[in-house]
Amino acid sequence: MPETLTLYTAKICPYAHRVELALAEAKAEYKRFDVDLGNKPEWYAPKVNPASKVPAVAYGGPDVPPDQPSPNSTKIAESLVLLEFVADLYPSAKLLPEDPVLRAKVRFFIDAVSNKFNPAYFSYVITGKGNQEGLIQAFKDIQVLLPETGFAVGNEWSIADASITPFIARLFVALENDLGAYAVGEGPKTLELIKTSPELKRIQTYIQDVTTRPSFTSTFDPELIKTGLTKRFANITRASS
Amino acid sequence: MPETLTLYTAKICPYAHRVELALAEAKAEYKRFDVDLGNKPEWYAPKVNPASKVPAVAYGGPDVPPDQPSPNSTKIAESLVLLEFVADLYPSAKLLPEDPVLRAKVRFFIDAVSNKFNPAYFSYVITGKGNQEGLIQAFKDIQVLLPETGFAVGNEWSIADASITPFIARLFVALENDLGAYAVGEGPKTLELIKTSPELKRIQTYIQDVTTRPSFTSTFDPELIKTGLTKRFANITRASS
Ligand SMILES: N[C@@H](CCC(=O)N[C@@H](CS)C(=O)NCC(=O)O)C(=O)O
Ligand SMILES: N[C@@H](CCC(=O)N[C@@H](CS)C(=O)NCC(=O)O)C(=O)O
Repeated sequence: MPETLTLYTAKICPYAHRVELALAEAKAEYKRFDVDLGNKPEWYAPKVNPASKVPAVAYGGPDVPPDQPSPNSTKIAESLVLLEFVADLYPSAKLLPEDPVLRAKVRFFIDAVSNKFNPAYFSYVITGKGNQEGLIQAFKDIQVLLPETGFAVGNEWSIADASITPFIARLFVALENDLGAYAVGEGPKTLELIKTSPELKRIQTYIQDVTTRPSFTSTFDPELIKTGLTKRFANITRASS
Repeated sequence: MPETLTLYTAKICPYAHRVELALAEAKAEYKRFDVDLGNKPEWYAPKVNPASKVPAVAYGGPDVPPDQPSPNSTKIAESLVLLEFVADLYPSAKLLPEDPVLRAKVRFFIDAVSNKFNPAYFSYVITGKGNQEGLIQAFKDIQVLLPETGFAVGNEWSIADASITPFIARLFVALENDLGAYAVGEGPKTLELIKTSPELKRIQTYIQDVTTRPSFTSTFDPELIKTGLTKRFANITRASS
């Protein structure tokens, strides 16, 4: 029986969103504290996460208000560590399959998200050092890992799906609104390509499947992401397309 | 009951060594195939690991010779995925603790190895872009995670220990023999510092503990590492110290 769990999170953050998805899928009861990333409470780093990032979890210990974290709870950080933690805490939610081979597939998928998909996303949208081709290739790299139907590793949603969905969702908001470090006007065209290219048929269905789940629709606020990205990219210099 | 397992490995490779350690600790029966990294068999990438790296595992399927991999076995790559896989296959070996909080600590430790320790090691020894200070700091970053005695997360050896030991062992061989991209003559001095600094007392004991286990002594060949590093650094230009 899991103990009290407090999630320190921020709606804008894709890493924190991963953990919100897993907790929603597990139907976990938990407290949440929204950290204002532009103005973090002074107690956050010393008392919750020395790296001063979200997500973080305080687990166990006395039942305290989230802004008065107890030294007697365990503090855990890093979104991928937390995905496994939520899966371990709620075994009956089956956020990880039981079969060792399928579990390995989940973890290999997550590794591809960290080492292939996310770098392409960051370099295209955030730093502007990447290009559309690199981004499309990243979708293909993920697509080859998908089974014919269903989620990342089969018919059951898993933490593999949690690892990528927040990034795809934020990418789509960015592209739709032409927000990012790529050339002005390119966003909607790239989005159109991702959504309609016959070469990406399988992952198009996959994206539908993961973004229509209640765990996603109840935890994602596209307007808030749009506002955040608008601020972030307000003053950068971009190439014209 | 695990099925046939073939490990594609290479003695020189720290990533492959991680998996050898876990399999040794699990007392697993397995076949091994040593991939000559300088001259990889042409079947290796298409039939075992498209990324053409070691380690990789072929699991299940018919009992075939390792150099004739069957399409009916599952192929799994990535050392950290494989550490979890071995832990899942051999639950009674307790390569991961059962408690979710301790499991999270194992994974957080592994994350620190990937994102703090290994980058410092590579930039100091391999690329020469780092410095001694960065390397010492990396040891401190790992040290703070260690409990007062025992292994990475407690009294039982775990895959957290498997994740770092091969890198420390190779670092020590490199430094002892002054092999690497740092300034000529600096290696032995850096090694002396790591081994004797009063600020690194806890990790000094830890290194003793992990490198005296039979799983380590039976899988590590320092002479082979020395030969490999000597070749690797034979023709590079180094600063004089
Ligand atoms: N590797 C971390 C990354 C978390 C991260 O970078 N979080 C960002 C927000 S998305 C953060 O809290 N940054 C600190 C800040 O904005 O001050 C994880 O996977 O949890
Ligand atoms: N991320 C991989 C890295 C494995 C890796 O880089 N292996 C090296 C040897 S240490 C390799 O096989 N390189 C390919 C080659 O040398 O051709 C893992 O953790 O398993």
